[in-house]
Amino acid sequence: MSPISRIALLTSVLFATSALSDPLPSWHDTEAKSRIMSFVESVTDPDSPDYVTPSARIATFDNDGTLWAEQPVYFQLVYALDRLRSKAEADPSILTSDALKAGAEGDIEGMLASGIEGLKEVLAVSHSGMSVTEFQSDVRRWLATATHPETGKLYGTMVYQPMLELLAYLRAEGFQTWIASGGGVHFLRTFAEETYGIPPQQVLGSATPTAYDADRRDVLKLPGIAFIDDKAAKPVGIDSRIGHRPIFAAGNSDGDFQMIEYAMAGDGPRFALIVHHTDAEREFAYDRESHVGRLVRGLDEGPERGWLIVDMANDWARVWADD
Amino acid sequence: MSPISRIALLTSVLFATSALSDPLPSWHDTEAKSRIMSFVESVTDPDSPDYVTPSARIATFDNDGTLWAEQPVYFQLVYALDRLRSKAEADPSILTSDALKAGAEGDIEGMLASGIEGLKEVLAVSHSGMSVTEFQSDVRRWLATATHPETGKLYGTMVYQPMLELLAYLRAEGFQTWIASGGGVHFLRTFAEETYGIPPQQVLGSATPTAYDADRRDVLKLPGIAFIDDKAAKPVGIDSRIGHRPIFAAGNSDGDFQMIEYAMAGDGPRFALIVHHTDAEREFAYDRESHVGRLVRGLDEGPERGWLIVDMANDWARVWADD
Repeated sequence: MSPISRIALLTSVLFATSALSDPLPSWHDTEAKSRIMSFVESVTDPDSPDYVTPSARIATFDNDGTLWAEQPVYFQLVYALDRLRSKAEADPSILTSDALKAGAEGDIEGMLASGIEGLKEVLAVSHSGMSVTEFQSDVRRWLATATHPETGKLYGTMVYQPMLELLAYLRAEGFQTWIASGGGVHFLRTFAEETYGIPPQQVLGSATPTAYDADRRDVLKLPGIAFIDDKAAKPVGIDSRIGHRPIFAAGNSDGDFQMIEYAMAGDGPRFALIVHHTDAEREFAYDRESHVGRLVRGLDEGPERGWLIVDMANDWARVWADD
Repeated sequence: MSPISRIALLTSVLFATSALSDPLPSWHDTEAKSRIMSFVESVTDPDSPDYVTPSARIATFDNDGTLWAEQPVYFQLVYALDRLRSKAEADPSILTSDALKAGAEGDIEGMLASGIEGLKEVLAVSHSGMSVTEFQSDVRRWLATATHPETGKLYGTMVYQPMLELLAYLRAEGFQTWIASGGGVHFLRTFAEETYGIPPQQVLGSATPTAYDADRRDVLKLPGIAFIDDKAAKPVGIDSRIGHRPIFAAGNSDGDFQMIEYAMAGDGPRFALIVHHTDAEREFAYDRESHVGRLVRGLDEGPERGWLIVDMANDWARVWADD
């Protein structure tokens, strides 16, 4: 082969590779995509003044409303109420309070009328009294069959394709991807690896108390709430478990505000992303007035702080992973 | 080169490589070393019935007495007392209790006479009232100069060369190595990466409460103890943070008993190791009667449970990393 042919071949291969390898094909070519890619390119280019060593490339993601859907209620709450109902069918005497009775009837407003105490009662029935292993087997059974009332999809498939691509892109560029979610850590770990490519040890979430049972040589889930991984607790959980300030943080509600603020306050280049649910046709449209995933501060302060607000309707070419 | 010479050369290269690549050169060729290597070879050989996929190759190590020394007292306690003393010199009015007065004089028995409350008071002075970043900078300063009263070595150099080799060997064979220590997580993370090759996110330990400070956009250490990562709490911490049952666990005291028991109770091949301090000449000799690193159950029950008891005097050719 002549040197010219060789160069021509090389050029065409490079061009084809580059065209084929758009890491974010489900993102429209809007500012959102270009800002994300510029950031990633600058922190991974050893010749860039913004270069960040791989060990510091920590990215944290909220889950509900950021990686998968959260309307009309958190999916884990649906699981809790399903389990409460089936246990109450087997033994109605467990319904010892108004909150439990309302929950077993699927009356979420009634259940929440007793505040956090009502929620704790429902969680105690559905999320404690078994080993972590048993709980996770049960969640897997539920995820295999339970479907969303509006979309008819399995809950576990209601994940956002553009965010899956973002996770994979970051990992391909040497980032470690983590979940920091208000959802339960044991719940999330049942699907995070298969669905998001995030292994159990990179999942942070809320938690029941647990205890070691020497007879069973296993860890048991106990009633109560040991940690609520939301708002100002998100930086606390990240410090406690990761021990690095993330350089990339993504969320969708004011529950993620402090996580993003904490991530952005470190030295050097940093990136913040808020998924704004603007797409009533393909997904759901909600923000300031929503009971689930309420977003006020992020919209008011995010842009001036340099945080990217992703407009789902305009920035995403595709929403669901299984479309 | 003739075919014969080629084979001879190849053989000599292979032989040299194999001899050079003994992964545990500071271990004598005793049963301990062969048991460790047989286990690692069997779980990493894809043709072995005991093969374990890399994602499940989780190894957890205690720190005090397992990776570095712990006599005559935990090194972190020496740090706490050093800091208490220097703060009391600047402002004697902080010594508001007998425990604090005893601590400032280096009288550990006197300090512990008030039980856990006395220890909490000392920790409150030395381990709270600053950001995590500030605390860790201070620990790094201390580690750079503080020396052990008997060996004269910097505390941070009193690490066991055979255990460093074991950590590196496991990682080279696809294991993820973790620390699960009764020591403080923020303290450990100041040196775990440089000393052991274990990054912050793979360090579990005891912890003070912390809180996010929105004004400083940082995480602050508060007085008190939020988690004591010892005994039955070790499996709890491992479940909470790793979410896998380890297949390899190493400790040296009865504080590690439940961690090892939990690790060994899973399905498939597993390995447990207890470092037995038998070497008064090169290190320290202690077990059943020691106040620090007490080891009774591990010696009584470990061998019949199949746990390897490492005899430091006979199994280790070398003790310290800097010898």
